Amino acid sequence: MYQRILIANRGEIALRVIRACKELGIETVAIYSEGDRGAHYLDLADEAYCVGPPRAVDSYLRIANVISAAEVGNVQAIHPGYGFLSENAHFNEICRSCNIDFIGPNPEAMAKLGDKNEARKLAMQAEVPVVPGSDGIVESVDDALHFSHEVGFPVLIKAVAGGGGRGMRVAANDLALKTAFNQAKSEAEAAFGNGDVYLEKYIEQPHHVEVQVLADHHGNVVHLWERDCSVQRRHQKLIEESPSTSVDQETRNAMCNSARRLISEADYTNAATVEFIVDKEGNYYFIEVNARIQVEHPVTEMVTGIDLIKQQILIASGEKLSMSQEDIVQSGAAIECRINAEDPRNNFRPSPGKIERLIVPGGFGVRFDSHVYSGYVVPPYYDSMIGKLIVHQPTRVEAIRTMQRALSELQVDGIQTTAGLHQEILSHSAFAEGRIDTTFIEREFTFG
Amino acid sequence: MYQRILIANRGEIALRVIRACKELGIETVAIYSEGDRGAHYLDLADEAYCVGPPRAVDSYLRIANVISAAEVGNVQAIHPGYGFLSENAHFNEICRSCNIDFIGPNPEAMAKLGDKNEARKLAMQAEVPVVPGSDGIVESVDDALHFSHEVGFPVLIKAVAGGGGRGMRVAANDLALKTAFNQAKSEAEAAFGNGDVYLEKYIEQPHHVEVQVLADHHGNVVHLWERDCSVQRRHQKLIEESPSTSVDQETRNAMCNSARRLISEADYTNAATVEFIVDKEGNYYFIEVNARIQVEHPVTEMVTGIDLIKQQILIASGEKLSMSQEDIVQSGAAIECRINAEDPRNNFRPSPGKIERLIVPGGFGVRFDSHVYSGYVVPPYYDSMIGKLIVHQPTRVEAIRTMQRALSELQVDGIQTTAGLHQEILSHSAFAEGRIDTTFIEREFTFG
Repeated sequence: MYQRILIANRGEIALRVIRACKELGIETVAIYSEGDRGAHYLDLADEAYCVGPPRAVDSYLRIANVISAAEVGNVQAIHPGYGFLSENAHFNEICRSCNIDFIGPNPEAMAKLGDKNEARKLAMQAEVPVVPGSDGIVESVDDALHFSHEVGFPVLIKAVAGGGGRGMRVAANDLALKTAFNQAKSEAEAAFGNGDVYLEKYIEQPHHVEVQVLADHHGNVVHLWERDCSVQRRHQKLIEESPSTSVDQETRNAMCNSARRLISEADYTNAATVEFIVDKEGNYYFIEVNARIQVEHPVTEMVTGIDLIKQQILIASGEKLSMSQEDIVQSGAAIECRINAEDPRNNFRPSPGKIERLIVPGGFGVRFDSHVYSGYVVPPYYDSMIGKLIVHQPTRVEAIRTMQRALSELQVDGIQTTAGLHQEILSHSAFAEGRIDTTFIEREFTFG
Repeated sequence: MYQRILIANRGEIALRVIRACKELGIETVAIYSEGDRGAHYLDLADEAYCVGPPRAVDSYLRIANVISAAEVGNVQAIHPGYGFLSENAHFNEICRSCNIDFIGPNPEAMAKLGDKNEARKLAMQAEVPVVPGSDGIVESVDDALHFSHEVGFPVLIKAVAGGGGRGMRVAANDLALKTAFNQAKSEAEAAFGNGDVYLEKYIEQPHHVEVQVLADHHGNVVHLWERDCSVQRRHQKLIEESPSTSVDQETRNAMCNSARRLISEADYTNAATVEFIVDKEGNYYFIEVNARIQVEHPVTEMVTGIDLIKQQILIASGEKLSMSQEDIVQSGAAIECRINAEDPRNNFRPSPGKIERLIVPGGFGVRFDSHVYSGYVVPPYYDSMIGKLIVHQPTRVEAIRTMQRALSELQVDGIQTTAGLHQEILSHSAFAEGRIDTTFIEREFTFG
């Protein structure tokens, strides 16, 4: 087992990893930018090194500085958290070349699953359903029509070189397709200097459901059931829960086994999240793998009783998984609300600044994961999440009530937060009934 | 179901009941003394009434004022919490005469179990083991010797009219008994004007183990397993846990079934705690029943997943218990540390005053039940408990580690607390090994 770990991250997840290490008897080395200097959570680490100026590219993302801190701190392993360098295969490789364990998959597995095309191929090999697609460039309108008739409208036209929605079009019938195909091609040509496009079946109002997987270095792969993350705004998750209301037990089992199969096939180790979308009929399709711990991992911890960060560390150090698939029971219902320092009534403008007073909710079934406290100054440089409020109850109805009650207790004086928006979402009848897809927030809420 | 409940208490337990009511959709009426005016938790109630000056006898214990608040607040029921009026059968009766449900047993059951002699008789009827005793006045040294030879030394001599340890003596052999018997009698005569004494077998270094029971108005009685409260200082519990390390599974089952049988026999409803002592050989003896919720109820909530305050309210309103005995599983290990505003290095002198900053521990397996926050002023008038730190993990070893980690995060600036003492206790090898009895603290720790 490791004696000493560096945490290549900040804020909530840095504190989360420090907590797990303390409980495992492992010393921790924290890093911080000048923008995080003096934050209380750094005092909970055994050592802390400054890695640069406030901007992440100058500090948390600066590989040389992070590695230097690891060398000076004399650690055996690095936990990357989420974001920053957590899915950077190059960083992962450098860790290996420095004889420091990267707490995550090896660089090859990370790179393979990080490539969407490779991951899709792997999924097909593992007989995991993927969104029906042309699997290659579609040259002509006729070919596009042929594909569309095969899979059924609507279809999505995407630029091969694309990103950010450019060169992307949805078409619902023959006529629309003919126009959209040519529009997409010329937009792609103009934007990327490459007019090649491919086609996919367009899944309307999809549910976002993901499966947590753990894989050790001894060939054991288990899933820890699913999380529903359909409550999103502009692809940013707001609320996550487990179990999902978007799947029945049969689909749940099939999807979770698919995820497990895919990770086995990929020769992958450590924690992974396999993301799916689920259509209105309850069909699920593989989307991508996140080769790291997720922000929303606590909902899985609540329903399974398994500490995922501890598992990551144990796996990286070479331990065998101590649980078998049959031991992992999804018990009760858990919900997480991300509390962001943003003003929902002002187009979610970030609201950094001093928290004059923080009152934290407590009591039965309530967990609050946060690095902030009364007097903490939220810096303007990073992600605006200041905490995660998580509840666990025997049933979803009770979990919603507990979350409403906990949100009503949460008091963050001095800055704006998204807590009030969460109250509105939780009170919405569609949320109560579990009828939520990724378009729910934009469809039902307007923000000033 | 009730629409509105008054909470006849303050601080942590008042907030605890408010939380449960909010989750059940019940409005709450809080009461406060002038010493608690302005406390934030009062804002979480729907209404709050002042019931008098700071001293408890002038406010929280003043039945007329509490009843007035209930009448004005138009409530259907009163939750008494723990302490104050919670075991006052007279108050209980007055509630009934005012047509307000008392959330607890009826006055008759409360009075019957509140009388130690009656409770002992009932236990014997229900074939629950009791500490061997003379069951009546022992008139002469010869009778005392006879009893002592029957049950074996050491024995305890107690004044019938006694209390506070006066007229109480332990004797370990014939010679000591002869002296102690006469000393006890004259001390009792001097103190209470009544020299009558009775005898009990003296249990050396006992473990304090108690069983949580719930009984509804439909004849259903279940136990929720045991709590070990052996870590005490001067009969004040410091740390509680479930399961107990003082009993094996056979004794656990027997003791829990004894508790259930006793409560059934007593025609009792609502929550009860049946207290036992366990001797070195693992024999258990009934001591008394607490006819109310206990401070340490959360450890039972953590291992069973059942919200006891909600259950109390549901039972009082006439609902049937929704779980049967077989459903109630003791899962994992939970520990609670009572955080008191006291200075252990100064003979536990109360340390009231302003909490300049509070940093609350969080993360996996951690619960903090408290009404205090940054800027709260701990008043000097009441019990010094400012919060309960509770952890839950799959095993006791992990629970201890999580508690150590959580205590290391807890920061209460401005006043003294017992958090540091808890760290010392948790690091003690005897605690780690579960070798703790009620004399452990006074035997192993010295306080300046």
